[in-house]
Amino acid sequence: MINIDQHLEREKEKINRALEQRLSHLVPSAVTDAMRYSLEAGGKRLRPILTLAAARTLGSEDDSVIDVACALEFIHTYSLIHDDLPAMDDSEIRRGKPTCHCVYGDALAILAGDGLLTLAFETLANYGSRDGCESRAIRIIAEISKSAGVNGMIGGQALDLGAEGRELSLTEIEQISLLKTGALLKASVVCGGIAANATQPQLKALACYASCLGNAFQIIDDLLDYESTTEELGKPAGADQVRLKANYPALLGPEKARARAEALYSESLAALDNLDCPAADLKEIAKILVYRKK
Amino acid sequence: MINIDQHLEREKEKINRALEQRLSHLVPSAVTDAMRYSLEAGGKRLRPILTLAAARTLGSEDDSVIDVACALEFIHTYSLIHDDLPAMDDSEIRRGKPTCHCVYGDALAILAGDGLLTLAFETLANYGSRDGCESRAIRIIAEISKSAGVNGMIGGQALDLGAEGRELSLTEIEQISLLKTGALLKASVVCGGIAANATQPQLKALACYASCLGNAFQIIDDLLDYESTTEELGKPAGADQVRLKANYPALLGPEKARARAEALYSESLAALDNLDCPAADLKEIAKILVYRKK
Repeated sequence: MINIDQHLEREKEKINRALEQRLSHLVPSAVTDAMRYSLEAGGKRLRPILTLAAARTLGSEDDSVIDVACALEFIHTYSLIHDDLPAMDDSEIRRGKPTCHCVYGDALAILAGDGLLTLAFETLANYGSRDGCESRAIRIIAEISKSAGVNGMIGGQALDLGAEGRELSLTEIEQISLLKTGALLKASVVCGGIAANATQPQLKALACYASCLGNAFQIIDDLLDYESTTEELGKPAGADQVRLKANYPALLGPEKARARAEALYSESLAALDNLDCPAADLKEIAKILVYRKK
Repeated sequence: MINIDQHLEREKEKINRALEQRLSHLVPSAVTDAMRYSLEAGGKRLRPILTLAAARTLGSEDDSVIDVACALEFIHTYSLIHDDLPAMDDSEIRRGKPTCHCVYGDALAILAGDGLLTLAFETLANYGSRDGCESRAIRIIAEISKSAGVNGMIGGQALDLGAEGRELSLTEIEQISLLKTGALLKASVVCGGIAANATQPQLKALACYASCLGNAFQIIDDLLDYESTTEELGKPAGADQVRLKANYPALLGPEKARARAEALYSESLAALDNLDCPAADLKEIAKILVYRKK
C-alpha cells in the first residue's frame, strides 16, 4: 500500500530539482532571479505531478517525461506572474509572498514570464531530441501550445478580465474556468499519456478525468477564497468578491458549489475506469485536490 | 536575372497571407484583434524573408517552411509589443502607428504578446506534424526557443533596460545588439537552413552571415534613428538619445558607425562563399538592409 502523501512529497522534491536543473544553463541575471523567485514561491506542483502520474499509470517509467512535467510548471508559473501584474489582476500577494513584480518591478516580471514560457518550449525540444521521442514531442508541443494559447488559457484570462464588475451566468463562469484553469490541467494529464504512448481511448479517458478534475479544482479554489481568512490562505481572502469577480460560491452558494465539486470528482473517477488499467495515483490526487483545506 | 524588389514584394505578400491563415483558427476576441493589429502594422517581414531565402538557397522548394517563417515573425511581433509597454520602453508610436497597448490597453497588449509567442510554437508543432519533418522541427524549436529566450533576445532586452541612463562601452553595445536583435535574426537564417537539410558547415556559414548582418542591421537602425526626423521614420526620431540609450553613432560618430556596418556587410557576403552554392537572394537582402533609407 503506497502512502500517497509521502509519494507526492518525493515527487515534488524530484520536480523541484528538475526545475532548478533546467534553469542552470541560463546566464545569471535579474531576469533569471525573477524566474527563480516565482518558481520557488511554494507552488503545489500540481501540473507536473499529474503529468508524471498519468505517464506512470500508463506504464511509462521513462525519466525523460520529467521534461514535459517541468514545461507545464514553467507555463503555469509564467501565467501567474503575468496575471498578477498591475495591468492585469494587480495582485500583491501570492502563496503568502510578495508577487514577482512587487519584488522585481513590472519590466522584469514581464520578461520573467516571457522567459519561462520560452523555456517551456526549449525544455520540450530537449524532450524531443531523444531518440524515438520526436513524434511524441511534436504532439505534446501541439497540445500544450493550444491549451496555453488564445483558444485556451490566455483566452480564459482575457474573458476573466472582461468579466470584472458585472454579474455572470453559471455558463460564463464555467467557460472561464474551463479555459483559464482547465485547459492547462487537461494538457498536463493528456501529455503524460502521450509520453507513455497511450491509445486514443486512453487519451480520451485521461482528458475526461482531467476536465472534471479541473472544474472541481476551480470550484474548490473559489470556495477556499470565499471562506478563508487571509492568514490561512496566504493571499487576500475574498479578493474575488471585493473585485466583483464572478465565482461559483457567489452564484450558487457554498453548499451547492461544494456538491457540484463532489459530483465532478465522482465523474473524474468514473472516467478512469475507461483506462483499462489501475489508476490509484490519479484517483488519490483527485481526492486530495477536492478535499484540500488550502 | 531576378528583380529582387519584385521578388521580395511577392514573398512579403505570401508571408502576410500565411500569417493571417495561422490566426484564422483562433476564436475571435479582443486579444486576437490586438495580435492582428500589431502583425498588420507594416513590418518589413525581414525574419520570415530570411528564413525562406535561406531554405531556397539550400535547395528547398518545400512549402512547409513557411510555418517556420511565420513562427519567427510571431515571435518578433510579440517582442515589439512587450518592449513597447509603459513598464518597458514606453513607446507610443511604432511604424507610424499607435503601439498595441495605446490602442488596446496594457492588459490586452501583454496577452497579445503572450498569445503570439505561444502561437509561434503551435505553428512549429504544425510544421513538425508533417511526415519526415519531426526531427528537423525539434531542432528548429530548440534553436528558436534558445535564441528568443533568456540567453538570447529576452536577455538582450533586460540588458538594454538596465543600460538606460548610463554610458556604455562599445563591447556592451555590441553585446546588447547581439542578443536583442542578432539572436533571432540568426535563428531565422539558420532555421531556414535546418528546414532545407543543410550540412553542418553550411549551417555554420549561414550563422556567420546572419551574425554579421544582424550587427550591421542594428547599426543602420541606430543611424537612421540618429539622423532621421520623426516624419521620415514613423517613430519619434532621436528617441534613443533622449532616453540616453546607448547606440553606435552616439559612441562612434555616424561616419565610423556607417563604415563599421559596411565592413560587417562585406563579412556577411564572404561567409556565404562557404555555402558552396549560389546565394544571390541572401546577398541582395543584405545589400538592401545595409543601404536602406528607412
